[in-house]
Amino acid sequence: MCSRVLVYGGKGALGSKCVELLKKNNVWVASIDLVANDAADSNVLITNLTSWTDQQDEVVTKVESALNGNNVDAILCVAGGWAGGNAKSKNLVKNADLMWKQSVWSSTIAAHLATKFLNSGGILTFPGAFAGTEGTPGMIGYGMAKAAVHQLCKSVASPSSGIPENTTVVSVLPITLDTPMNRKGMPDADFSSWTSLDFVAELLLKWAKGSDRPENGSLLKLVTEKGNTKVVPV
Amino acid sequence: MCSRVLVYGGKGALGSKCVELLKKNNVWVASIDLVANDAADSNVLITNLTSWTDQQDEVVTKVESALNGNNVDAILCVAGGWAGGNAKSKNLVKNADLMWKQSVWSSTIAAHLATKFLNSGGILTFPGAFAGTEGTPGMIGYGMAKAAVHQLCKSVASPSSGIPENTTVVSVLPITLDTPMNRKGMPDADFSSWTSLDFVAELLLKWAKGSDRPENGSLLKLVTEKGNTKVVPV
Repeated sequence: MCSRVLVYGGKGALGSKCVELLKKNNVWVASIDLVANDAADSNVLITNLTSWTDQQDEVVTKVESALNGNNVDAILCVAGGWAGGNAKSKNLVKNADLMWKQSVWSSTIAAHLATKFLNSGGILTFPGAFAGTEGTPGMIGYGMAKAAVHQLCKSVASPSSGIPENTTVVSVLPITLDTPMNRKGMPDADFSSWTSLDFVAELLLKWAKGSDRPENGSLLKLVTEKGNTKVVPV
Repeated sequence: MCSRVLVYGGKGALGSKCVELLKKNNVWVASIDLVANDAADSNVLITNLTSWTDQQDEVVTKVESALNGNNVDAILCVAGGWAGGNAKSKNLVKNADLMWKQSVWSSTIAAHLATKFLNSGGILTFPGAFAGTEGTPGMIGYGMAKAAVHQLCKSVASPSSGIPENTTVVSVLPITLDTPMNRKGMPDADFSSWTSLDFVAELLLKWAKGSDRPENGSLLKLVTEKGNTKVVPV
């Protein structure tokens, strides 16, 4: 059963798909993002972008108010972004800082939300990337942030992490998601090897409902060939 | 040959050992740290602790001035720290933020310094931790920061990262270093399984001199038993 869900990054490309699909399935959804998603039942708007602790306090307080005493069955963190830069780049640190804030601040706060508002037996998902399992010389900040998210997933899935009993904690590792932004950035790529947002949203919904859940602590690579996607544990 | 070295974190427990040993070997050393190490030939003092980009600018400018037109043969980044906290901890984000600043800001800036001031054929070392290769539920911020440093090592060691040709890039992954702080924090531990600072400093000096260098991109676990340490690729 899945009656209430938090989508962290609920106004992004993947987050919007998740909110849309959850609403179609009559699930109550709160979106946590910088901008409201009008399709959600409730919006937690993040305004503090300079201090991680202040952002956490803001999100916790606003989620508590949005939930009004209820808990959720799933926390789907799909917040993130992309920026490049090798070690020589003048944007190395600027972009690494942005990647950290977009991916790691959000995922860490999502983990903390799970300790407060997730029902036992629920699910918490993190936004990984297959690139983060290897070296990423042309996008150093992005790779570090994703590697940190993968390790966070393993930590939070471990005993005594502080999350509710029988939570499933997983991270999905796309190679390339088929988003409007990626199509714009790589217009000549082979889109049939990109993973559709619908596929990912359906996968997360299925797990949120308790079906076919992967092993706790899994990092799951999404391998798409000719439009078909397989979910492969790393 | 090794005539000039930057020690990033040169006033810490391990950094001080490195500076001491390098000086004994007649190597010119600049220490980059918050506090001066009087044993070093030059001190680059970091005063900007709030903005990563400003800290980078400060360090690059001051290193350039300290080197006065010379390059270095090694950049030994041994900066870091430790703080705990599981997902439920009220200090989760505060400590994760600190770990990021202490380990990842420094290592990323060290990588950038390598693109500007390291001779080709030199060595760049990063401060990893074996814990970061697994889940660390009781020290979530620490594990994420170390996982990011490990991935950074793989990125910077990869072609087109922007560092000089034939650089060896490695990360050393201790289990527990035998520091005064660790002895104070874990007074009843078996110290014979901890790795001595002398061992690590000697290892880094040997590599800086060009002897027995490990494979580029290696993550090297330090396994100490009964006072003897082995260097084991992860």
